[in-house]
Amino acid sequence: MAQLRIPGPTPCPDEVLQAMTKQMINHRGPEFAQIVQGITDQLKTFFQTENDVFILTGSGTGGLEAAVVNTLSPDDKVLSISIGVFGDRFATIARTFGAEVTPLNFEWGKAADVDEIRRALEADTAIKAVLVTHNETSTGVTNDLEAISALIKEFDKLILVDAVSSLSAIDLPVDKWGCDVVVTGSQKGWMVPPGLAMISISEAAWQAHAQAKMPRFYWDFSKAKIYLEKGQTPWTPGMPMVFALAKALDMMAKEGLFNILARHIKIGQMTRDGVKTLGLPLFADEKYASNSVTSVAGAGSLNIKKLITIMREEHGIVLGGGQLTLGGKIFRIGHMGFVSEADIQGVLDALKIALPKAGFGG
Amino acid sequence: MAQLRIPGPTPCPDEVLQAMTKQMINHRGPEFAQIVQGITDQLKTFFQTENDVFILTGSGTGGLEAAVVNTLSPDDKVLSISIGVFGDRFATIARTFGAEVTPLNFEWGKAADVDEIRRALEADTAIKAVLVTHNETSTGVTNDLEAISALIKEFDKLILVDAVSSLSAIDLPVDKWGCDVVVTGSQKGWMVPPGLAMISISEAAWQAHAQAKMPRFYWDFSKAKIYLEKGQTPWTPGMPMVFALAKALDMMAKEGLFNILARHIKIGQMTRDGVKTLGLPLFADEKYASNSVTSVAGAGSLNIKKLITIMREEHGIVLGGGQLTLGGKIFRIGHMGFVSEADIQGVLDALKIALPKAGFGG
Repeated sequence: MAQLRIPGPTPCPDEVLQAMTKQMINHRGPEFAQIVQGITDQLKTFFQTENDVFILTGSGTGGLEAAVVNTLSPDDKVLSISIGVFGDRFATIARTFGAEVTPLNFEWGKAADVDEIRRALEADTAIKAVLVTHNETSTGVTNDLEAISALIKEFDKLILVDAVSSLSAIDLPVDKWGCDVVVTGSQKGWMVPPGLAMISISEAAWQAHAQAKMPRFYWDFSKAKIYLEKGQTPWTPGMPMVFALAKALDMMAKEGLFNILARHIKIGQMTRDGVKTLGLPLFADEKYASNSVTSVAGAGSLNIKKLITIMREEHGIVLGGGQLTLGGKIFRIGHMGFVSEADIQGVLDALKIALPKAGFGG
Repeated sequence: MAQLRIPGPTPCPDEVLQAMTKQMINHRGPEFAQIVQGITDQLKTFFQTENDVFILTGSGTGGLEAAVVNTLSPDDKVLSISIGVFGDRFATIARTFGAEVTPLNFEWGKAADVDEIRRALEADTAIKAVLVTHNETSTGVTNDLEAISALIKEFDKLILVDAVSSLSAIDLPVDKWGCDVVVTGSQKGWMVPPGLAMISISEAAWQAHAQAKMPRFYWDFSKAKIYLEKGQTPWTPGMPMVFALAKALDMMAKEGLFNILARHIKIGQMTRDGVKTLGLPLFADEKYASNSVTSVAGAGSLNIKKLITIMREEHGIVLGGGQLTLGGKIFRIGHMGFVSEADIQGVLDALKIALPKAGFGG
């Protein structure tokens, strides 16, 4: 069995996979209502929020679309803070649905600069909402969301957060930082297969929702809220992942949020230290390097595509490549969710053998 | 273990549930590409089409939204043929995204009248597309889609079909009948848990797509097409259901489409005969009664809510209630996908015992 070390989907514990063999039940019946209500309460603990939290059937991208269409109207001015592929995607979604997007893009591999965000907010007081990525999966950079959120709240703007590859792996106290809409995906830090997006909505986001005129049906928060009161989802949900999430949340509750976060910090550091010891440069600005995914730059005559192939074929370890313009220029090691130090040691040991074969040093 | 006899989600064979315990793999890698391409080819057999077929992560309702936003522009005139809850929902989606919807609603329990559809199409030549439900899950009625499609093609309109609870259980030769967009859901006739919508797109639908201006991102067919060429989906898919669908399609291929359809015809007839033998009236016009779900009307002093509770608590059989205005007035027996005559005999035997306790005859 190959070991999956891409930044999502991530490997799932056996107990979580087994949870999906549960036979289908009535999604409008009492047993399912109990499961949905239990999960929702547990999710609030991991989101560190008392806001509404909904479970949507779809990918993280679906969750980002939900965040946009539920809170904005066509022609609304939106500031997009992007540090990579997923930041750009968030902006594209908003633009697709008619928002007037001001892009504030930073060099890939760097975090967003808070002073530049301040200048952008000062430059256009008509901005209504800010889109920001907490952890940029494509570059392995974690933005300083605490500082960014504080700034955006100072300007009294709505803040929509892509936390797809951070939440539950990297600290994100939603209420403390005042994040209005926060989106995550089941296949990242949650140890669950892909297919669900989980999303929190603040009181300010609900107020925006009441005015928001972008068309929405499937993703509509109002419907999600009405149905959740009955322990249901508006549409038939991806039931296996709901069962899986219930099991994963039980396991996560046992480990405890702060232990999980500490484990990710430790493993993130171990990964970066290990990569540097092998002589490879980190792609991400180390001050903002992600604890859920490490991006590694090429060096010397290293053939990154060849390295990824050798790692898969000879070591059974699947690494992530670079996306779009980063193709062939970086590789990525996912370490979120169900991951241990031994897993990463295995990756580092295999890299040591594979690197010379892929043209590096040796 | 309770036996689920609601019209979706439907029970899954053990082999299908077990298929979901497969560990996650790279959704951009060669193994997954092979699975996606294999499934897509098999789906075309069951859709009886050479059109493009896409797998979307979402519910059937998500698939209906995809059908609308990919082929229409705001202010487009749309004729909505509705015979129940899901027909009304399809119209609401189109209206939500700005279409000018002319509703053509028929009495619940009846099929759509083809002559009335002709008059509606004659009355407004500006109509661009027609929304039609093949099998209305809320009333247990199957429209004469062959006749309706022929008529709509005579007028050269686009036809968008909700086949969520028909496809693979009730005959729907997509190409022969000229259906432009056809939507189905994994949790109905496919013996797979909920979480995927499968959708076919004709050449005429692609032409409409090229002009269609409703905003779309997550559901965009263009993106689905580009990624499918690589054996991928644009966004991380609901992987467990993809694994489940691969297994279910193998089982379905062994049984064969026409044997599956014949089994549903036989079981549909058996259910209706059994219900009538118990002295209960069918809710659906028998000429158009569905072979995937049977709706049963109340009679005498029967308390339908009580009957459903007794069936669940004393017999371990979960029946569907009536939706919206049909609540307490009908109950529904789902018989699509993984269902045998023995399953239905079990329902009928239990009903015979439960009915007197719920105030009927006895």
